[in-house]
Amino acid sequence: MEEHKSRVTAESIEHERPADAADILEKLPLEEELDVVRKLDTEVAARLLGEMDPEDSARVIAAMAPERVAQIVEAMPPDEAADIIPHIQKLLRWELFDKLNPQTAATLKNLLQYPPDSAGGIMTPEVITVTEDMTVREAIERLRRLESQVEILYYVYVINNQQQLVGVLPMRELVLKDPQTPVRDIMVRDVVSIPVEMDREEAARIFARYKYYALPVVDSAGHLLGKITADDVIDVLNEEASEDIQKMAGAGGDEKVDSPIRFSFRKRLPWLQVNLATAFFASMVVGLFQDVLSRAAILAVFLPVVAGEGGNAGAQTLAVVIRAIALGEVSAKNIWRVMWRELCLSASTGLMIGLTAMAVVYLWVRQLSLALAIGGAMFINIVVACLGGAAIPLGLKAIGIDPAQSSSIFLTTLTDVVGFGTYLGLAAVIMKVF
Amino acid sequence: MEEHKSRVTAESIEHERPADAADILEKLPLEEELDVVRKLDTEVAARLLGEMDPEDSARVIAAMAPERVAQIVEAMPPDEAADIIPHIQKLLRWELFDKLNPQTAATLKNLLQYPPDSAGGIMTPEVITVTEDMTVREAIERLRRLESQVEILYYVYVINNQQQLVGVLPMRELVLKDPQTPVRDIMVRDVVSIPVEMDREEAARIFARYKYYALPVVDSAGHLLGKITADDVIDVLNEEASEDIQKMAGAGGDEKVDSPIRFSFRKRLPWLQVNLATAFFASMVVGLFQDVLSRAAILAVFLPVVAGEGGNAGAQTLAVVIRAIALGEVSAKNIWRVMWRELCLSASTGLMIGLTAMAVVYLWVRQLSLALAIGGAMFINIVVACLGGAAIPLGLKAIGIDPAQSSSIFLTTLTDVVGFGTYLGLAAVIMKVF
Repeated sequence: MEEHKSRVTAESIEHERPADAADILEKLPLEEELDVVRKLDTEVAARLLGEMDPEDSARVIAAMAPERVAQIVEAMPPDEAADIIPHIQKLLRWELFDKLNPQTAATLKNLLQYPPDSAGGIMTPEVITVTEDMTVREAIERLRRLESQVEILYYVYVINNQQQLVGVLPMRELVLKDPQTPVRDIMVRDVVSIPVEMDREEAARIFARYKYYALPVVDSAGHLLGKITADDVIDVLNEEASEDIQKMAGAGGDEKVDSPIRFSFRKRLPWLQVNLATAFFASMVVGLFQDVLSRAAILAVFLPVVAGEGGNAGAQTLAVVIRAIALGEVSAKNIWRVMWRELCLSASTGLMIGLTAMAVVYLWVRQLSLALAIGGAMFINIVVACLGGAAIPLGLKAIGIDPAQSSSIFLTTLTDVVGFGTYLGLAAVIMKVF
Repeated sequence: MEEHKSRVTAESIEHERPADAADILEKLPLEEELDVVRKLDTEVAARLLGEMDPEDSARVIAAMAPERVAQIVEAMPPDEAADIIPHIQKLLRWELFDKLNPQTAATLKNLLQYPPDSAGGIMTPEVITVTEDMTVREAIERLRRLESQVEILYYVYVINNQQQLVGVLPMRELVLKDPQTPVRDIMVRDVVSIPVEMDREEAARIFARYKYYALPVVDSAGHLLGKITADDVIDVLNEEASEDIQKMAGAGGDEKVDSPIRFSFRKRLPWLQVNLATAFFASMVVGLFQDVLSRAAILAVFLPVVAGEGGNAGAQTLAVVIRAIALGEVSAKNIWRVMWRELCLSASTGLMIGLTAMAVVYLWVRQLSLALAIGGAMFINIVVACLGGAAIPLGLKAIGIDPAQSSSIFLTTLTDVVGFGTYLGLAAVIMKVF
């Protein structure tokens, strides 16, 4: 392969943006990856390992001398280090904590307490604070002193002497206001803050709603613990969107097109097995009508139409409702309005589709009884499907399960069972009557 | 309804955050909404109408005096105004442009040229620039002068005297560096910028990858046209995630749980009709085997199992691949690796599920021929489904169609046809042999 001929070296890597460098590095075999990382400057190595997939970084770290790893981790933003550490073997992890500066170790241990899907799990504890009794000049001096430790700063948080968050100061105020002005007079007091235990999806919704670039994270007593920035939120939104769409069909929420096959196999197979069980259940419903079917094999021909159309109508609703849940647009208040809307919508689409199907079947096989059975079953199934498409994710959420989790599988079971039952049931009744 | 008793007034609205105020207002009948907006201060009204759903804002605007509307639009960030204008009737739109300050009108007309899904469609043209020959002190003085027009500023863009973007200056540099320093010496020269015609999803990927808060938008000659900020990207990601998941099943990409029923009806019905047509096509495949079915009605019982399982396996792959496309993780380079991975994955899950299904069917009906037909069809269908789940969105993308668009419907057609064909075909052959 010609393109890989040009060897990746520490020097060539240092000139790339961290995200690009991480990409290049992740594609190398572990040995070469280590060769490069070992030769990198500590700062650069820290930025790079922070950019890489945490599991990959952990693999590199596990193969390096603990003293060197400690240096690199010291240079990393604590939130990035905290993402990598859970992927390191326990023994190595202890060794690493031993070698770290006790304060860094404490910060990291503290961060690791918070569940990864909470605000605490995505926040960085590095915040720049000034106290409310400083002047603008004093605040700027403090920032100058902190410069080397400060990553990027847009807002400065103002605390009182109990370390409680009392205000926020946009950087522009520091630039534009008179240096003698007390911070207290120009700070914004009405600060939106995120409780540390809040779900990260909820935190992302607050960003999307109020259009912030960074928000402070506080504990229940109002102490400032860290901040969440817009780039954290962008990551959360991307991860949550993948999770929702992938979990719907029972794939892994964290699967990627380049995940190891074993990983995807373990995620997908259990839900395919569940789907198999529910499909057999649906086929038992068909089995109930075996003698009707043997008298009129033509009935079997239209089984897929009834079930498929219900499945599709339900999937449309399911998608809209799952997104509404993700964006915080369904609440206890409007849940009945949502169901009512789906009822009206499905009744109207169901009527159109039922009539069309009835006409097609009649023109095809010239049996009015069969056409009536199809049309009626189609209408009923589409209505049930849309109500189910709304009720399943809302119900999963109500009992504390991820509303997307395998919702397609549950929905298909419903539409298969109802579709086959009403279609064959109606057919049996109508054929007896005629 | 007790809770609605407390009347919404201009005064009560002014104390809310714009996003909350917009929510309250949108729930009022148009008449009351107008009553409130008419009494609002121009600045507040501008912020509020910018926050509201653009269609709602357009409805309010259409009912107000054009002079007043012009005042409000002048006070709005141009990108928000440009989102509303396309929803205003043409005649009113002309009248509005007539009343606007010619410069504002030109800015808006210019913005309206860009497709809504391009970088130009989401950028704001309000950028703060300094020239490369200024000192830090001169740059700060310029910012002070611009203060009233400046929304929030994090980066300052540096241009040369041909208006071309040559650098970027983080606000922190202005705060922390000596006032005599020339801008040229401290600006970052290696600026990432977004071409104005770039797809907005692609632009969002650049934000996610390099973790920026704002990026400049340029034309092909490098002239600075505007900027995109992280909150724009958050909106894009939310909209694109809804679009993908909803379009998969043929619902509208922009449907919401509170969209008018007529709107959703128009979006969903055409795809339900397509699904009906493809379902009839699949049932024609079943029809080919009508005489086999009439000899062995039991065959019909397992039709849903074969088709459903293939559909589910394919949906898992489809979800993973659609997300990979959204996140820019599939390219011409790795497309064959993705297909190969799905082949291996589906062969292994297909084998497990095929064997399980074979065992269950054998234990249930004690017919080895039927069990063999089920198991074989299941294996083949799962492999085809997973390959299809990857090929369908990639193929749609290759021919320039949204890869999510109704991909579930196309996939189900494939798995139904292949499932029924192999199952009944295998059954027919095996039953002839035995």
